[in-house]
Amino acid sequence: MDTRRLEAFSDGVLAVAITLLVFQVELPPLPPGHLAHALFHLWPSYASYVVSFAIVGIIWVNHHAMFDRVAVVDRTLLFLNLALLMGVAFLPFPTAVLAGHVHKGGADSHVAAAVYSATMAGIGLTFLLLWRHLAATPGLLVDGFGADQARAAFRRTVPGPVIYGASIGLAYLSALACLVLYAGMAVYFILPGREAREVPAPAAP
Amino acid sequence: MDTRRLEAFSDGVLAVAITLLVFQVELPPLPPGHLAHALFHLWPSYASYVVSFAIVGIIWVNHHAMFDRVAVVDRTLLFLNLALLMGVAFLPFPTAVLAGHVHKGGADSHVAAAVYSATMAGIGLTFLLLWRHLAATPGLLVDGFGADQARAAFRRTVPGPVIYGASIGLAYLSALACLVLYAGMAVYFILPGREAREVPAPAAP
Amino acid sequence: MDTRRLEAFSDGVLAVAITLLVFQVELPPLPPGHLAHALFHLWPSYASYVVSFAIVGIIWVNHHAMFDRVAVVDRTLLFLNLALLMGVAFLPFPTAVLAGHVHKGGADSHVAAAVYSATMAGIGLTFLLLWRHLAATPGLLVDGFGADQARAAFRRTVPGPVIYGASIGLAYLSALACLVLYAGMAVYFILPGREAREVPAPAAP
Amino acid sequence: MDTRRLEAFSDGVLAVAITLLVFQVELPPLPPGHLAHALFHLWPSYASYVVSFAIVGIIWVNHHAMFDRVAVVDRTLLFLNLALLMGVAFLPFPTAVLAGHVHKGGADSHVAAAVYSATMAGIGLTFLLLWRHLAATPGLLVDGFGADQARAAFRRTVPGPVIYGASIGLAYLSALACLVLYAGMAVYFILPGREAREVPAPAAP
Repeated sequence: MDTRRLEAFSDGVLAVAITLLVFQVELPPLPPGHLAHALFHLWPSYASYVVSFAIVGIIWVNHHAMFDRVAVVDRTLLFLNLALLMGVAFLPFPTAVLAGHVHKGGADSHVAAAVYSATMAGIGLTFLLLWRHLAATPGLLVDGFGADQARAAFRRTVPGPVIYGASIGLAYLSALACLVLYAGMAVYFILPGREAREVPAPAAP
Repeated sequence: MDTRRLEAFSDGVLAVAITLLVFQVELPPLPPGHLAHALFHLWPSYASYVVSFAIVGIIWVNHHAMFDRVAVVDRTLLFLNLALLMGVAFLPFPTAVLAGHVHKGGADSHVAAAVYSATMAGIGLTFLLLWRHLAATPGLLVDGFGADQARAAFRRTVPGPVIYGASIGLAYLSALACLVLYAGMAVYFILPGREAREVPAPAAP
Repeated sequence: MDTRRLEAFSDGVLAVAITLLVFQVELPPLPPGHLAHALFHLWPSYASYVVSFAIVGIIWVNHHAMFDRVAVVDRTLLFLNLALLMGVAFLPFPTAVLAGHVHKGGADSHVAAAVYSATMAGIGLTFLLLWRHLAATPGLLVDGFGADQARAAFRRTVPGPVIYGASIGLAYLSALACLVLYAGMAVYFILPGREAREVPAPAAP
Repeated sequence: MDTRRLEAFSDGVLAVAITLLVFQVELPPLPPGHLAHALFHLWPSYASYVVSFAIVGIIWVNHHAMFDRVAVVDRTLLFLNLALLMGVAFLPFPTAVLAGHVHKGGADSHVAAAVYSATMAGIGLTFLLLWRHLAATPGLLVDGFGADQARAAFRRTVPGPVIYGASIGLAYLSALACLVLYAGMAVYFILPGREAREVPAPAAP
């Protein structure tokens, strides 16, 4: 299977997943005259929407940065990529859980943030496994991008799942702090000048 | 990253977002024999569907008109485009809010129309930022379309967010007037002969 | 705008719309031990799913048959195509209405079938308008397919919206008869050997 | 119609269907403090998500393996492919039914697993019909892949629907055993080294 087709299917899944994120933004049944108030109290849904949208957008950018370096797709790459997509397509669920509980404090908010962190750590892990497989199978890479560079990409990808994994612990201190951390990591990745830095994004290439 | 891939992903998000608009058209639970009546009372949902569908369609047309002039995608363009998609993918929510309240009059209808107007103004603003970046970075443009033309496109894009921003004020007079305004702007853009006019569409290129 | 891009976006909308049809197939809350019974009583949902899926599939086939004959897209074609997509993307709603009422008999079933018929007639009408525009603007057509052939395609498209329009009347006799008619039209179109016949499908090319 | 377009549309439907699978993972309304407990009790939803995601992923791989051998699309192939897509796009429903009942034991769990098995057997059957048509119409195949090879692909596809069909019987012994069987078949197909085996996957090429 050539790269083009795998990328087209992956783009499709990412485009659908990113667009479905809005469905967790939902008004409860309201008595007349309470719309403004209810819209205001949906802020955790807006924040979760923006953060998850940015993260899936970054994943899309990193996914392309990876597959621009791939010339041939083997069976392992194919199914590791499906595992990555399985994680991203699952994201609307932890996003909804986070949006529904982050502002409530207490045990439920901690659990919600931990679930979100764990999902992101899992997605980051599939990126790690993808780079490891590419580093170990340089015959899959395009000319001019060798095993050394794939290993370097692997190392640059490590901080992502590590930070997200560590944020499972942070979740038990404060769910809001987790949300701020996710947003900060996305902003850090998106800001211009990033190319010159080492970036602890979920899946920096 | 080349233009083709960014456009394919954007087309995917726009195609999903436009097709999800129908989900706000929903019947409440009904006693037998009330279907005709209930379908008739869904007119705000039909109107919101048609208006939002036309607007996303116009955004798709304008998005292509812009990226047909782009030869190279830089990091800023990439993330400004993601911001645009974040706005459009959010549209099903204000569409549902508008559909649920525009006909009720009173404070809730004003709030609903203001939220819709603000979302559209935000989307228009991302178009403005995209053209400003292209005008300031002419190296991204295709041959034969220079900074001057990008600045002209920027100026033609200004009325969109301005009108939508002003309609936030109109929302506090009448939500229905806002709906008529949105529809009127879409029709004005769609009507043949538009090329010869200056068009205050959300994101006229 | 070139044909390729319009087709890619249309394919996206059609693929999303056809896949969303399954969401009207839904179990009500059930007491334990009633699943088999409840699944059996969902037959109107299965039937509506199959019929709408087949119809959108046929629309996709006809859409390609049309745009394979188009070399250049003008503004009118662009927005007539958006009107067609607006109709198809709306189809999950009348499909759900039909599935929810076709088996109940009485006024509600008649209304539900009439709404479905009217939507299909509207979609068929946009196909008619597209062929009429192509017949009137032969400069848009590919070499070897002229105005005469576009007019012939227009004439072959007439029976679709006419039959669906007439089925609005049939709806007031029997909703089930309408469902059988829709299914029969789809089967008639799909059956091998169809090329040799004149086909009253919603949008036969 | 050329293969490219049919594949693009099929990829779109498969990408949407696979991404919609997450919607059956849903929390019921909860009293405060019960989130961790409720998330734990959603395990049948997670398991069904993973199994259905893997199966649709495998179907996507097999679909490409088939159409890489197809040079020309005829009308029969077109509509058999639509039947295959109709089955896959329906999968979110039996997945939700399975997730909602597999852990409950009793008649409902048996029915749920039987419905899932029957859907998968149906999808496998469309793969069989596709290969049979290709074997009978070798003019559709690419050079270097003849009727003999299509017949071999047909024979390798037989175990899939047969095993799924047989699992309808297993469903009446234990729904959980069915879930384990589905997962095992997916793992067996995905594991490296599979090329060297005969694989009873739903639609092994």
